[in-house]
Amino acid sequence: MALEIERRFLVRKDVRHLCRDGVRIVQGYLPSDGTSTVRVRIAGDRATLTIKSLKRGACREEIEHPLSLDFARRLLLHSCDGRVIDKTRYRHCRDGLCWEIDVFHGENTGLIIAEVELEDPDQTVPLPDWIGAEVTTLRAYGNSSLSRAPIQRWSASAAA
Amino acid sequence: MALEIERRFLVRKDVRHLCRDGVRIVQGYLPSDGTSTVRVRIAGDRATLTIKSLKRGACREEIEHPLSLDFARRLLLHSCDGRVIDKTRYRHCRDGLCWEIDVFHGENTGLIIAEVELEDPDQTVPLPDWIGAEVTTLRAYGNSSLSRAPIQRWSASAAA
Repeated sequence: MALEIERRFLVRKDVRHLCRDGVRIVQGYLPSDGTSTVRVRIAGDRATLTIKSLKRGACREEIEHPLSLDFARRLLLHSCDGRVIDKTRYRHCRDGLCWEIDVFHGENTGLIIAEVELEDPDQTVPLPDWIGAEVTTLRAYGNSSLSRAPIQRWSASAAA
Repeated sequence: MALEIERRFLVRKDVRHLCRDGVRIVQGYLPSDGTSTVRVRIAGDRATLTIKSLKRGACREEIEHPLSLDFARRLLLHSCDGRVIDKTRYRHCRDGLCWEIDVFHGENTGLIIAEVELEDPDQTVPLPDWIGAEVTTLRAYGNSSLSRAPIQRWSASAAA
């Protein structure tokens, strides 16, 4: 398995004018035993199945397998129990780092999250001025959680 | 999707002496929405992920996708919630039909099921003398059900 080290932040304003290469991503989650997630993703014309371990801080292990688009669509339709995320991913590279900025659609409309992959969890990350609060370890902002409990279903107390 | 037409029977006696090419099969089931099953199978050195629709009589639709052995093992370990079948499949061809004879292990030890794939659900099937009761439409004898409720956990009343 590969080690993924990733920090995640809310985005304070629309930064799509800074970005290139928006790719529509539809991804869903198969039920699992709670020690890992199994994600089906269609990103543009590429489909994958990915097993991800639970996070430890900014780190988790993952292993990915290619799927045909047809097979991935069937899994999304029939095996994810409606737990599907729809978002557009933009890329913005600066200061030697490439940010991936996810603009969510559907019941997560209004949410924008910027992610940056690192080589070391203690690596210094220069934060652009449009970066808001860090959500790396906040489970509610993880894609798997957002597929089950999208932000438009958060109550005022839960969102506080 | 391909249409699978299959009749299934209990086997009255050990017929392994008639058979060739025993292949060990380990397969598990991912949780799904109830309208289909998603099966992870390792058969010898080949791994697959298969979506199967619910049965209508002897018929159901299925679509299969190849997996790497490593990825399939991880799915079996972490994503099937322990719902795993272990069996050896033997083949026996006669009267122009190829029977697949599954000898179950683990908590399904004692169960032997013979399957035959057909081109037409109404096709005449010459039954060898070792064939017992037909279980084509009995859900409890399906592999997915046996992975959740193996025969050694059946109560006397449930097995009647």
